[in-house]
Amino acid sequence: MEAKLNELKNRLSEVADLNAAGAVLGWDQATYMPAGGAEARGRQLATLGSLSQAKFTDAEVGRLLDALEPWAAQQAPDSDDAALIRKTRKDYDKQVKVSADWVARANLHIAKSYQAWTEARPANDFKSVEDHLKTTLDLSREYANFFPGYDHIADPLIDGPDPGMQASSIRSVFSELREQLVPLVQAITSQAETDDSALRHSYPEKEQLDFGLAVIKDFGFDFNRGRQDMTHHPFCTTFSISDVRITTRAQENYLADALFSTLHEAGHAMYEQGVNPAYEATPLAGGTSSGVHESQSRTWENIVGRSRGFWQHYYPKLQAMFPGQLKGVNLDTFYRAINKVERSLIRTDADEVTYNLHVMLRFDLELQLLEGTLEIKDLPAAWHARYKSDLGIQAPSDVDGVLQDVHWYAGFIGGSFQGYTLGNIMSALFYDAALQAHPSIPQEVASGQFGTLHTWLRENIYDYGSKYEPNELIERVTGGPLRIEPYIKYLRDKYGKLYTLS
Amino acid sequence: MEAKLNELKNRLSEVADLNAAGAVLGWDQATYMPAGGAEARGRQLATLGSLSQAKFTDAEVGRLLDALEPWAAQQAPDSDDAALIRKTRKDYDKQVKVSADWVARANLHIAKSYQAWTEARPANDFKSVEDHLKTTLDLSREYANFFPGYDHIADPLIDGPDPGMQASSIRSVFSELREQLVPLVQAITSQAETDDSALRHSYPEKEQLDFGLAVIKDFGFDFNRGRQDMTHHPFCTTFSISDVRITTRAQENYLADALFSTLHEAGHAMYEQGVNPAYEATPLAGGTSSGVHESQSRTWENIVGRSRGFWQHYYPKLQAMFPGQLKGVNLDTFYRAINKVERSLIRTDADEVTYNLHVMLRFDLELQLLEGTLEIKDLPAAWHARYKSDLGIQAPSDVDGVLQDVHWYAGFIGGSFQGYTLGNIMSALFYDAALQAHPSIPQEVASGQFGTLHTWLRENIYDYGSKYEPNELIERVTGGPLRIEPYIKYLRDKYGKLYTLS
Repeated sequence: MEAKLNELKNRLSEVADLNAAGAVLGWDQATYMPAGGAEARGRQLATLGSLSQAKFTDAEVGRLLDALEPWAAQQAPDSDDAALIRKTRKDYDKQVKVSADWVARANLHIAKSYQAWTEARPANDFKSVEDHLKTTLDLSREYANFFPGYDHIADPLIDGPDPGMQASSIRSVFSELREQLVPLVQAITSQAETDDSALRHSYPEKEQLDFGLAVIKDFGFDFNRGRQDMTHHPFCTTFSISDVRITTRAQENYLADALFSTLHEAGHAMYEQGVNPAYEATPLAGGTSSGVHESQSRTWENIVGRSRGFWQHYYPKLQAMFPGQLKGVNLDTFYRAINKVERSLIRTDADEVTYNLHVMLRFDLELQLLEGTLEIKDLPAAWHARYKSDLGIQAPSDVDGVLQDVHWYAGFIGGSFQGYTLGNIMSALFYDAALQAHPSIPQEVASGQFGTLHTWLRENIYDYGSKYEPNELIERVTGGPLRIEPYIKYLRDKYGKLYTLS
Repeated sequence: MEAKLNELKNRLSEVADLNAAGAVLGWDQATYMPAGGAEARGRQLATLGSLSQAKFTDAEVGRLLDALEPWAAQQAPDSDDAALIRKTRKDYDKQVKVSADWVARANLHIAKSYQAWTEARPANDFKSVEDHLKTTLDLSREYANFFPGYDHIADPLIDGPDPGMQASSIRSVFSELREQLVPLVQAITSQAETDDSALRHSYPEKEQLDFGLAVIKDFGFDFNRGRQDMTHHPFCTTFSISDVRITTRAQENYLADALFSTLHEAGHAMYEQGVNPAYEATPLAGGTSSGVHESQSRTWENIVGRSRGFWQHYYPKLQAMFPGQLKGVNLDTFYRAINKVERSLIRTDADEVTYNLHVMLRFDLELQLLEGTLEIKDLPAAWHARYKSDLGIQAPSDVDGVLQDVHWYAGFIGGSFQGYTLGNIMSALFYDAALQAHPSIPQEVASGQFGTLHTWLRENIYDYGSKYEPNELIERVTGGPLRIEPYIKYLRDKYGKLYTLS
């Protein structure tokens, strides 16, 4: 058995190395690569991807799993090796069930569809991508049907980014959340607009970046095992548990962009850096789901980084770095500015309170499309109607409407968005559990100390990597299922102090 | 045949993509990677290397070559496809003849030996690496013996970096060169020492780099298909014909380091960028040998970049960038400073005239070791003796003696050094041919115009990639074999003006 287990681990390590190489090439493509390198880079990434896929779906991997499963069933329930075999089996079955023909057609289609979107969006031309989206919807349904026996047709698509999560339960959680948020947003946005002009002076890029780097160093981001570089669309990428890269961008005239992007990506990165080193180069390395991942980026960006306590400690430092720009701007004015709530059209620019409304309407539209209760041709109107009903505003065109996000044009319909809001909900759920264990955390944050929080998150979440699926992890950490109460309480407490709420 | 040729090309493209991925990972390791990433990166590079090796030596590649060779023999002698099959066959045979057992032992040994050297050098402890070097010598001989029928035991080791070149002919060319250089160095170094203090003021790094980048832009380095980053030991690396990276380093108190390193690496890079794009992702992409490669780095660094004409144009620009540091330093003083000849101990710091003496003594020692006329234990003494006889100086210890270069400790004995001097010889040979075709080149260089030279080099050398082996390329470009006369004439003309020569 030990020989078979080692053989399996060697094969998985080879797959992990190919995936890591792909990650390095992708990182370089988004940070330093000269424009001329694009064509060859696309080819190189495709080669690495198909080699990794071929190595992972090799029939010998299936035989090793067959041989190891009876042995794994006898191990202790918390055994790492048993978890490895369980997780590998699930990933393996997922990949072998999908036909090579579908993969080839899907890759080809996505490349075309993405290209069409890059032209359609500036031209406000939804018509030109309508047929592409129809094919995307067909391909998405086809994918789901490789996994018959699902409860909802979106489930197999959700199971990729958020393993074990299902449309029906997410829908019911989201509908609860929406019922709370819509009136909350109405109550806030009927009040006087917050003045955030302090954020919009001229802030030199270098100082912006230096400040963000100093903060995440205090958070516990390990610069010996990671670094930050510049890019267009910030992201976090993992080359190994000991090499996790984040990227950011800066706007000279908007202080909040680089800073909160850095805190957000550092949250993702600290999760990845915190995984048990014994999981290196196995399917257990890396965060367990898009939702749990987002819970960590949001914890460090929002719950910590946009809290009043945090800025009690850091605002004097920020003022010292930008004495001219922040002269006469007091802590409360600054704190209100970085937490300004407003009805807006763009998801990625939205504040904490409105953000989930943007996400949940996309999730609902995905389900309706997959169910066949909404047709692609009616998508722009359905989009505008939901913005009207949920946020009370409407985009003047499809540019900031249905053409806004890349997801459906460069991926599939189903599974693309739920992770963002699941993450927000979980961030408060996990933070609540951390507070119960360590009530001193807010005081520590207010003096620039993050060790207790970071250690708790590492020991209760990060260390496990992908050993537990999100529902199991939530159960272990909180003793119950996913629930929205801590998140609602967090928003009501925080925004009840910033605005007048009933 | 076309189907078979396409099948071969597809397989070679996959190998090229894996090698390119390895190059990206190696570049990142030497430029941006945080220290913590080292262990996983080593594993990832090893995985990519062995996958590439396995794909290239797949028996099906051999069968495709067998099937295609009769067809290739009927193509025109200059056919690219025939050259591809010829070159692939040579590389394939080289790799399949070497046993997997030898490769495994050699990789393991080199890692250990390199590690031992990193400790032995600062400790001046040759004894501690003696046994490692003995094993290296055994492994080097074993490698050679995979290719029985050689003329000299070093030939199979030389054939890797300098295909088709042989120990006997290199030895005779080098011995001719040495006879000329030893008295030349004596004549120069018996004269008053050149004052190069102007190079040793404080030069801010950013301006140093900006200046170098501006020069290589003028040379014709294509920044749309390449870029420069910082590293410890400058190098050039190729990810595709359209993405060639160079690296440099800077010393604040020595102006010549960053600048000439940038010009040197840009020479390598322009060669790689200039290869026929039709060769992308095949064994014909990339320069044909270490010697021809070095000829191009030396052309741009030395023949152009250390010429008086070049500085007629660029020195006023350099003075404008560093007005304080270069105040009162006239063109001639500066020109003499960057061409200062001196007896020195370190190869990589040596000037144009003495440099080849450093290289050729290493080449001779390699041959003697392989022949068995010199034993590893006697290597330090032999090293000191050759420095005494060739350069008239002796290192106070082995630190700057036999422990100086990484090559023998991180690679094999044989084939490591000849490329540097072959390159210097070829640089003058090729430049001479360019001048015969375009006598206006020196005047153009003196006005910052490099288009004629660059175009000639591209059309006569770069474009061919690895299509022709170095001897064939020399024959095509110059109409004759490798000869040292143009190089000797170049040195005598240039240094005859800087120093008094008989």
